Amino acid sequence: MAATEVNMSDGEQFFEGVEKLLEIWFTTGDGNAKTADLRKIPRHNLESLLKIVRCEIISFAKNDQIDAYVLSESSLFISKRRFILKTCGTTIPLLCLEPLLHLAEQFAGFTEVEDLFYSRKNYRRPELQVTPHKHFDQEVALLDSLFPDGAAYCLGAINRDCWFLYTLNPVPQRNRRPALPPLEPDQTLEILMTDLDPEIMSIFTREECLNATEATKKAGIDKIIPNMVIDDFLFEPCGYSMNGVTKNINTEISNGCYMTIHITPENEFSYVSFETNVPSSSYRDIIDKVIDTFLPGKFTVTIFANQTSPVKSTTKELIHMNAIGEWLRRDIQQCNFKNYDLLYAFYSKFPS
Amino acid sequence: MAATEVNMSDGEQFFEGVEKLLEIWFTTGDGNAKTADLRKIPRHNLESLLKIVRCEIISFAKNDQIDAYVLSESSLFISKRRFILKTCGTTIPLLCLEPLLHLAEQFAGFTEVEDLFYSRKNYRRPELQVTPHKHFDQEVALLDSLFPDGAAYCLGAINRDCWFLYTLNPVPQRNRRPALPPLEPDQTLEILMTDLDPEIMSIFTREECLNATEATKKAGIDKIIPNMVIDDFLFEPCGYSMNGVTKNINTEISNGCYMTIHITPENEFSYVSFETNVPSSSYRDIIDKVIDTFLPGKFTVTIFANQTSPVKSTTKELIHMNAIGEWLRRDIQQCNFKNYDLLYAFYSKFPS
Repeated sequence: MAATEVNMSDGEQFFEGVEKLLEIWFTTGDGNAKTADLRKIPRHNLESLLKIVRCEIISFAKNDQIDAYVLSESSLFISKRRFILKTCGTTIPLLCLEPLLHLAEQFAGFTEVEDLFYSRKNYRRPELQVTPHKHFDQEVALLDSLFPDGAAYCLGAINRDCWFLYTLNPVPQRNRRPALPPLEPDQTLEILMTDLDPEIMSIFTREECLNATEATKKAGIDKIIPNMVIDDFLFEPCGYSMNGVTKNINTEISNGCYMTIHITPENEFSYVSFETNVPSSSYRDIIDKVIDTFLPGKFTVTIFANQTSPVKSTTKELIHMNAIGEWLRRDIQQCNFKNYDLLYAFYSKFPS
Repeated sequence: MAATEVNMSDGEQFFEGVEKLLEIWFTTGDGNAKTADLRKIPRHNLESLLKIVRCEIISFAKNDQIDAYVLSESSLFISKRRFILKTCGTTIPLLCLEPLLHLAEQFAGFTEVEDLFYSRKNYRRPELQVTPHKHFDQEVALLDSLFPDGAAYCLGAINRDCWFLYTLNPVPQRNRRPALPPLEPDQTLEILMTDLDPEIMSIFTREECLNATEATKKAGIDKIIPNMVIDDFLFEPCGYSMNGVTKNINTEISNGCYMTIHITPENEFSYVSFETNVPSSSYRDIIDKVIDTFLPGKFTVTIFANQTSPVKSTTKELIHMNAIGEWLRRDIQQCNFKNYDLLYAFYSKFPS
């Protein structure tokens, strides 16, 4: 999704829907955590930061706990100590990392990175990317220069569909286990879809829908997770982005929850991403809704869950299932990290 | 381990202990499975095959079910339908793949590859390898040209210690589940160790031991798995290889069982590999013995187990353990494949 398409030298149109996803958790390292807040970073500085990434803010929504920005290329979510930047196309988000660390210290009062996750699916056209995003090795080299404890992983089949991850995985400290406060439950579900149903994709064009609200309703996006404040955008001539944040009145699920969907509808390179951090004892229901809404040919599911997250049962459920509806599982992998367990699975429709 | 060391241009000595491990299971695809046998391939043809790989046979042992060869660079095991070639240094085993498929058809009566596993740890000096083994991408490209259902994986941290695997992972066939005969239990444990204890490593030199038998006893290698016919070799001036096959009289564990150990003792690039397929309800005991025998600074453990293998409980045990003795776990990953579940774990000694 984005307003503009890359015009290839031979006149062929192409847009890389696959996003680079950066999620950083900050901490103060001392007792000043109460006043520190990433939302104190002035809008002007955020805009300069996004200029480095090569994208800009086009819409904004918020609740008590999250500022949610729709970008010209995907989304930005800022809460007290968590920064999530998800950008597609040929953006270069890793170049904003150092300036971001400075802003977090200067304006928000955060001096330390507690945890970091940089991830993306394999690109459809890696050769069109800009350095340092042309190859995962390049991305890793940049991240390694900033984080001595960083570890890089590839989940899934390297020679087919796969998903890259860089996260912090420090050497365990045997005799140094301070009494940590119990972790707040945290989880992220991401579903990255390709080869989508052309009829459904046509909803996300200006030909078929007048505006984003119409597309959101027609596709049933507002039904996937209820009680969200939806900020959606329909690009010209096609493409769609939406951010959802939980309504402030909502008591069932935490106000810190978000969802986001980005759609590149063109048949030749269709791509849809779905992401949320809503807690749930089973993600099966959300996964089913997302898949039924977009009817992809292939999709990856990734679930991060920390020790106190209620999502862990979903992981077990998915391990024992060889299929989700008509989609057969081709890969499943699990990793255990410092604070999070990760499940990766890849499904494809049985050729009919 | 090998008879010769690479002399670098600057006079520095180096040998790549890390092995390339190729395991292939053949099948006839029709009813001729009873007469088909890989051990029918004439010795002369095996020798030509190994010439392509750039190594040669230096010793031989066997039981009713396995022919076990010690090579100038590691080992070769041939049983009725399983071919295992493990070669270190700058050997090029993937180049023997096509000729091997021809030999298997011509002499052994096998027309189909049922399963294939190509794996290795990350090299210490990849730039010294020979094409197509310089980079995993090269190896994958060659394998992809022969196997349409191949899938390539990297387990562990790409930017640190990791382990590459290529295996067959065909598209699941939903409505085609023939009543398969129950799989014979099968499992493989591999432990790849680096930064080993220099005193223990000195055992595997001609300075300290007169011959292989002395080294085997002194290090306690004969105690790791009892009741094995041991074929060991001590290289000049240093380096050690051993193959073990179960004694024919042994009734407790199948005659199809083997173990193999290869040692590159030099302090600057010490490396030891251990591998076995003995069935066991817990591999913890063997892992402990191996680690205590060699005292590595770091090691990877990989366990492949099929549905009927008794080893599965070990996998669960390891997932719940953050350490093995003094060695702390830095990575743990699980994959599920067509016939096998795989566990990968990486441990390193807490810096003292």
